[in-house]
Amino acid sequence: MTELRLGIDVGGTKILGVVLDPTDPREPVAVRRSSTPANFDDVVDALRDVIELLRADASQRGDTVSSIGIGVPGVVDRDGVLRGAPNLLSAVDAPLRDRVEQAVGSPVLIENDANCALWAEAELGAGRGASDIVMVALGTGIGGAVMVDGRLRVGAHGFAGEPGHLVVSRDGVLCPCGRRGCWERYASGAGLAWLAQQAVGPAGERSGANRIVELAGGDPLAIRGEHVTTAADEGDDIARAVFEEFARWVAVGIGSLMNILDPDLVIIGGGLIDHSRHYLERVRDLLPAEVLGAGAHRPIPIAAASLGPMAGAIGAALLAATPHRLR
Amino acid sequence: MTELRLGIDVGGTKILGVVLDPTDPREPVAVRRSSTPANFDDVVDALRDVIELLRADASQRGDTVSSIGIGVPGVVDRDGVLRGAPNLLSAVDAPLRDRVEQAVGSPVLIENDANCALWAEAELGAGRGASDIVMVALGTGIGGAVMVDGRLRVGAHGFAGEPGHLVVSRDGVLCPCGRRGCWERYASGAGLAWLAQQAVGPAGERSGANRIVELAGGDPLAIRGEHVTTAADEGDDIARAVFEEFARWVAVGIGSLMNILDPDLVIIGGGLIDHSRHYLERVRDLLPAEVLGAGAHRPIPIAAASLGPMAGAIGAALLAATPHRLR
Repeated sequence: MTELRLGIDVGGTKILGVVLDPTDPREPVAVRRSSTPANFDDVVDALRDVIELLRADASQRGDTVSSIGIGVPGVVDRDGVLRGAPNLLSAVDAPLRDRVEQAVGSPVLIENDANCALWAEAELGAGRGASDIVMVALGTGIGGAVMVDGRLRVGAHGFAGEPGHLVVSRDGVLCPCGRRGCWERYASGAGLAWLAQQAVGPAGERSGANRIVELAGGDPLAIRGEHVTTAADEGDDIARAVFEEFARWVAVGIGSLMNILDPDLVIIGGGLIDHSRHYLERVRDLLPAEVLGAGAHRPIPIAAASLGPMAGAIGAALLAATPHRLR
Repeated sequence: MTELRLGIDVGGTKILGVVLDPTDPREPVAVRRSSTPANFDDVVDALRDVIELLRADASQRGDTVSSIGIGVPGVVDRDGVLRGAPNLLSAVDAPLRDRVEQAVGSPVLIENDANCALWAEAELGAGRGASDIVMVALGTGIGGAVMVDGRLRVGAHGFAGEPGHLVVSRDGVLCPCGRRGCWERYASGAGLAWLAQQAVGPAGERSGANRIVELAGGDPLAIRGEHVTTAADEGDDIARAVFEEFARWVAVGIGSLMNILDPDLVIIGGGLIDHSRHYLERVRDLLPAEVLGAGAHRPIPIAAASLGPMAGAIGAALLAATPHRLR
């Protein structure tokens, strides 16, 4: 009988649960999926159901689940309560950890999803061997996590690691957070769409009919990040120019993070890492000029996340069995 | 006989050395000053002379010096070598620690000067009781230091804590570091001068003869930070408006640092803290809107450094007797 580890990644729309065998944690022995309900009580029930299914999966193998970790899309305080989670509003300020623990009868760890993903990458993926890591997850917005000396840095209130809200252009684009020029307005999927809209002009007039606008159904205001990546995959020149600008914004933010934290590794994850061939090498080229004293040591490596979309759930499973938080 | 601690702060123009009694470290028992020579061998000699004078001061009291720390204006690697020090170029890449140790026959600690100042504030000044501190030193440029869980965070290469080179305006003012829009172009003494030049126009034409330009000898391009502070002290309206803009830039950078590091305290030091009445309250007012999730906890306090210009030397003295570095 093996003691397995259970991990769940709760997103704004989906719940993904895995069970890992600690002797070979890269390949989950069981996977369960569910959708994320809209209200808090239902979220707790859905988590309970996924946990019970995964426990049954473990039993069928003759094994047991010895720890449970849950990654959530927001900042988590020391009591396992979400404080700020734009994509899981129903759980904000609610006693998530206490309620799930009551429902399943076991201790549960609640941790920020980006922290979970970084932990998984550090243990099993792109971060093996490094102990001072900055991770940025380029998705719709930008998430992030910071590892210092082998431990996740969560900050005095659990709010550390929000690089998406570095201000990189004080008089720039308005952000839903209320400020202007936050990094995630430029270097995310939403940013990619915005850069493309700037490139083609508000009515697409600067370029006539072009591929990005065509993919967006003819409406420049309907451009999304995936239209730019598709056009770039097809070799479209405007899309490539948009990615050049995108790479500059990515480098500016990572450079600022390096000047504050001086990590030994930067990992880029999130959905946009699947399109890294359009910008990652360029980011690497641009970075030395962004970092103070960069000439005095080997360039800080910029790695692509390697565990894919299960990183969060895997990391949650690994974290629950590990003391991992540094203030 | 008491074992005293010796600390030195080496600046671009001045050397300040102190000897502390560990039982009452706030008031140095001896102070020695010297100027900073231009070439490296002479810097080593000047440091040796200051150390010998302070040792003699200690002997005269019947005490001895048991540890020596030196704060330097640049990033320091693990071998006590400066890597990047725009105001002490002669010492860059030279074996400073080894040479001073040979000259004085004792172990010597070399540490970044902002790290020294933060350590002093944390032990004796504005930072007592806090363990997760971000310090920004607003001087000609912006220096900085980060404490995590009671230890100074120096980074994988010793280069952490350079908030002056956060990019806050990607298409903004050119910085000597080669990038555009670094925070220290706006929120430093140099930034204050630049903001004033913008306010009065390149030929002072926007305001006719005004006090800031007058203090600069009639030439807007000769405006320095101290002209703005003097005019503001006198109640000049333009100077006050410049400080309002200055406060906004200070808040933008500190807000970004908070979103990455989530400290329990921010300390503002550097020469501009002497003029804090013109901007500090305004920075405090502006900050909650700059910080993600700020509503979920009490506002992070923004304190003024309290130890004055001796903080660096005092911190160097305290650090030499303490394991203090976190990668």
